Amino acid sequence: MGKNRLEAFSDGVLAIIITIMVLELKVPHGAALDALLPLLPVFLSYVLSFVYIGIYWNNHHHLLHTLHRVSGAILWANLHLLFWLSLLPFATGWMGENHFAALPTAIYGLVLLMAALAYLLLQRLIIAAEGEDSVLAQAVGRDWKGKASWLLYVVAVGTASRWTWLSQSLYVLVALLWLIPDRRIERLLQLQAQEIP
Amino acid sequence: MGKNRLEAFSDGVLAIIITIMVLELKVPHGAALDALLPLLPVFLSYVLSFVYIGIYWNNHHHLLHTLHRVSGAILWANLHLLFWLSLLPFATGWMGENHFAALPTAIYGLVLLMAALAYLLLQRLIIAAEGEDSVLAQAVGRDWKGKASWLLYVVAVGTASRWTWLSQSLYVLVALLWLIPDRRIERLLQLQAQEIP
Amino acid sequence: MGKNRLEAFSDGVLAIIITIMVLELKVPHGAALDALLPLLPVFLSYVLSFVYIGIYWNNHHHLLHTLHRVSGAILWANLHLLFWLSLLPFATGWMGENHFAALPTAIYGLVLLMAALAYLLLQRLIIAAEGEDSVLAQAVGRDWKGKASWLLYVVAVGTASRWTWLSQSLYVLVALLWLIPDRRIERLLQLQAQEIP
Amino acid sequence: MGKNRLEAFSDGVLAIIITIMVLELKVPHGAALDALLPLLPVFLSYVLSFVYIGIYWNNHHHLLHTLHRVSGAILWANLHLLFWLSLLPFATGWMGENHFAALPTAIYGLVLLMAALAYLLLQRLIIAAEGEDSVLAQAVGRDWKGKASWLLYVVAVGTASRWTWLSQSLYVLVALLWLIPDRRIERLLQLQAQEIP
Repeated sequence: MGKNRLEAFSDGVLAIIITIMVLELKVPHGAALDALLPLLPVFLSYVLSFVYIGIYWNNHHHLLHTLHRVSGAILWANLHLLFWLSLLPFATGWMGENHFAALPTAIYGLVLLMAALAYLLLQRLIIAAEGEDSVLAQAVGRDWKGKASWLLYVVAVGTASRWTWLSQSLYVLVALLWLIPDRRIERLLQLQAQEIP
Repeated sequence: MGKNRLEAFSDGVLAIIITIMVLELKVPHGAALDALLPLLPVFLSYVLSFVYIGIYWNNHHHLLHTLHRVSGAILWANLHLLFWLSLLPFATGWMGENHFAALPTAIYGLVLLMAALAYLLLQRLIIAAEGEDSVLAQAVGRDWKGKASWLLYVVAVGTASRWTWLSQSLYVLVALLWLIPDRRIERLLQLQAQEIP
Repeated sequence: MGKNRLEAFSDGVLAIIITIMVLELKVPHGAALDALLPLLPVFLSYVLSFVYIGIYWNNHHHLLHTLHRVSGAILWANLHLLFWLSLLPFATGWMGENHFAALPTAIYGLVLLMAALAYLLLQRLIIAAEGEDSVLAQAVGRDWKGKASWLLYVVAVGTASRWTWLSQSLYVLVALLWLIPDRRIERLLQLQAQEIP
Repeated sequence: MGKNRLEAFSDGVLAIIITIMVLELKVPHGAALDALLPLLPVFLSYVLSFVYIGIYWNNHHHLLHTLHRVSGAILWANLHLLFWLSLLPFATGWMGENHFAALPTAIYGLVLLMAALAYLLLQRLIIAAEGEDSVLAQAVGRDWKGKASWLLYVVAVGTASRWTWLSQSLYVLVALLWLIPDRRIERLLQLQAQEIP
């Protein structure tokens, strides 16, 4: 299985997920402002999830960038990641429609947590295949961003029933953490290119 | 991030947006003509939005044509453009279902305006990366078409509550303005090719 | 605009159309056979439209095969074709849900007719660009298949109100006519290859 | 018709099918746990179908890997496979919403059976085109996995009305059988590469 087809399929699924989410923004029946206003929470949760899928698309590309050979394990780890991301439209719609209620907020965080763990698993498998001294292994390093994200997701899921606003803030915080694209791999690739004179 | 993957992802999202819009054209329950007729406004707004997405797809290609390297800022500016365009199916459906009522017409124009501003931002970032004397910078020039569009969108949003028919006409006018594909870049590329003897 | 991107975008839209049609096959509420049986007409119309989109996908590829340069006119003629094909899921769902009633059957034929005319227009523009002695022009020749299709569509639309079963049969007949992929272009390309010794 | 375009179109359709299935997971109206629990069967059937589409995507790639020329018959056999797979979201949703009732379970198995037969047909056509001593023919060999799958599907469809749980177990069993990617072709390709010194 060539890397290109894995990338193309993943891109296709991510493009569909990001676009299908907008279908939860159901066209209201009235034409007045008070028909539109109840949609505001759905809209806000759509914005948040759009950013998250954008982040995953971007980082996913960096992750595969250094990959040479797609094994069966990597292929299924990739599908596993897409599976959890495919649940995001559902979690987004449920959270938005219920105006950021406690349980939907916790479920939203759970989906994000599972996607993050699936991403970690994929990363581990690629590093295992490419070697501990590969560009990706060096680039990821101690992966503090990844670790911070899982911790924050766990906290957010745990506090959702009591301080739902805190969970929401943590989701926004993690998104902001990652919004800056992962330049670690790019930087190392440049370093490597410089070292080969 | 290679340019090809950015193009492929954008094309995927645009292809989904343009096709998903047709889902707002809900299958009516009766089989008679009076079951079909109320769908006419939804159909007309679908035609308009189809043309707009076609225009964006076309111009987006010209925009990226001269790009050499995709930075993180360009990547997110591109996602930002796709975000606003992803709201077009919602705005189209709402405007169509309410038979071009005032508020939905204004919201439709607002989405078009935000997409146009997102396109401008992306254009600026690409020119900044490629240099003021790049092919794109020369091709865009004073960008009177872009400026006219924003102005017309603003007027259309402002007049929607009073002269809704005027706003609608302005949306059609802007679409006609752009329907002619942006040959400026193509022409300059040809000039450049001729200059290199 | 490269031919590849036009092909990729068209393929994307066609893939979405062919898959979105299945959404009209709404999941029934009961679990018994009498909940499933009313879906039979929707299923049959889905099969018919699936075959039609398959035919268009296949012939569209042959059409673009000989194309060298994508002009603005060809680009918009292509989008125009995709527009009419994008209405097929709606027409399919309406015809199926109303158990092949007269008006939905006529509308279905109208959409097929418009798509066929859009295909003809695209074919004409490509031949005009490539020249009357191009491979495509020779391959299309008198285009009796295309002409027969339009004629049969027109007859089907006209008779739908009185002999709906005849219209349905004609749609199936035209599909069978085209199900055999258009080997004319392939054959000529082979002839040409043989002539160059 | 190049192999690449056949692959790209199939990948597009499969990516849409896998993502559209999640739309059957309808956002519930309440925000409490008892609004979420009834969705559990829909979720479980979604997981099963996700795995099945993943398996088809993976094996489809191996199948086309050794193909050199796409004939009209292969093209339509491929569309025929996609047709049956496109019915999986419907069958999944119906089975999930009716909590794995007898008839929907049987229909689900019937769709899987038809897809498996379509896959077999495609495999046969490719082997016929490539020759009985081709890599694919040797790789497939006696195809015990394929034969076991059809047998198990037939048993599952037959027993669904009486022992529905058995049918469900068989669907899971077949998925597990195939979850291990088909290394036969890969292995033979490696052997072949070794034989060419």
